[in-house]
Amino acid sequence: MKSLGARTLLYPTPVVVVGTYDKDGKPNVMTAAWVGVCCSRPPSIAVSLREATYTHGNIVEREAFTVNIPSEKYLKETDYFGVVSGREADKFSAAKLTPVRSDRVDAPYVKEFPLVLECKLTHTIKIGLHTQFIGEIIDVKADEAVLEHELPDMKKLNPILYAPEAQKYYGVGSYLGEAHSIGKKI
Amino acid sequence: MKSLGARTLLYPTPVVVVGTYDKDGKPNVMTAAWVGVCCSRPPSIAVSLREATYTHGNIVEREAFTVNIPSEKYLKETDYFGVVSGREADKFSAAKLTPVRSDRVDAPYVKEFPLVLECKLTHTIKIGLHTQFIGEIIDVKADEAVLEHELPDMKKLNPILYAPEAQKYYGVGSYLGEAHSIGKKI
Repeated sequence: MKSLGARTLLYPTPVVVVGTYDKDGKPNVMTAAWVGVCCSRPPSIAVSLREATYTHGNIVEREAFTVNIPSEKYLKETDYFGVVSGREADKFSAAKLTPVRSDRVDAPYVKEFPLVLECKLTHTIKIGLHTQFIGEIIDVKADEAVLEHELPDMKKLNPILYAPEAQKYYGVGSYLGEAHSIGKKI
Repeated sequence: MKSLGARTLLYPTPVVVVGTYDKDGKPNVMTAAWVGVCCSRPPSIAVSLREATYTHGNIVEREAFTVNIPSEKYLKETDYFGVVSGREADKFSAAKLTPVRSDRVDAPYVKEFPLVLECKLTHTIKIGLHTQFIGEIIDVKADEAVLEHELPDMKKLNPILYAPEAQKYYGVGSYLGEAHSIGKKI
């Protein structure tokens, strides 16, 4: 095994777009890969952001955010949301996407994206360069076209994956098997 | 958009295997999907576990853990590590895999897995059913066979993805594009 040093090489990470309102009610979106589920009950998700980002200030102000999962089809828009700051641009307009006010939390979601987690801020943990925001998932909204038996279907959803440091995006591949089942054959 | 209720539907999550020693020095492994990078400096990763798990007690005791990224080839072993408790089984022996003592932290890693993050516990956050352990990544070790330009190559690594609640595993698909680059064309 070769030592690569102290680096954030979790392979892969999900790719999500965090939706927030600023203090004037302007909707903003920012792409994030430092994200993960962190509790089943209450259902909670952690999103880590640099303090310098516009979204960081918005979450502190509004105590709410949405986690939008883009499909591969919106790869360019998703990458753009990670490149430009909401301080300088109206990213929704520039990407020709539509902000919709969440009916459950004080944050907008991206209408065109197939899956949205609506979150209320519960914990703020300053770690270092990044602050971790933990949000309780109040509701999940999905485009009916990506559902199968009332759950998102991975291949219909077609989300994006990220390789940290290599800075490359990948798609989802083949179905491999049933969890908590195929390991029983060991 | 259809409301699905308050659920942990982040699609997809990574699939990792957390390596720890118990108080007697017995190596244990447990599969986890509630995981994510949470800071770039210091490089840090969050792993959330139920208090009832053997690994939870081990991390509290040893203040260290490894995050092992299995390749698709070890899907059965990985699933098995999530089904059985370290209280009842020597999971390494049962899966015929090899524990190796990390040279940087007080935890074992899985020799056969291609990528390992060696972590020292820095924060413990009790959220609800799950406790979130944040570890500083002290070093990363990789099988040279999965490297390309000194970084893991996603297709050589071939990690496993997870669909929460649907409880299905998937592989990684095609390369889609360069991050912080393709969005500039918006």
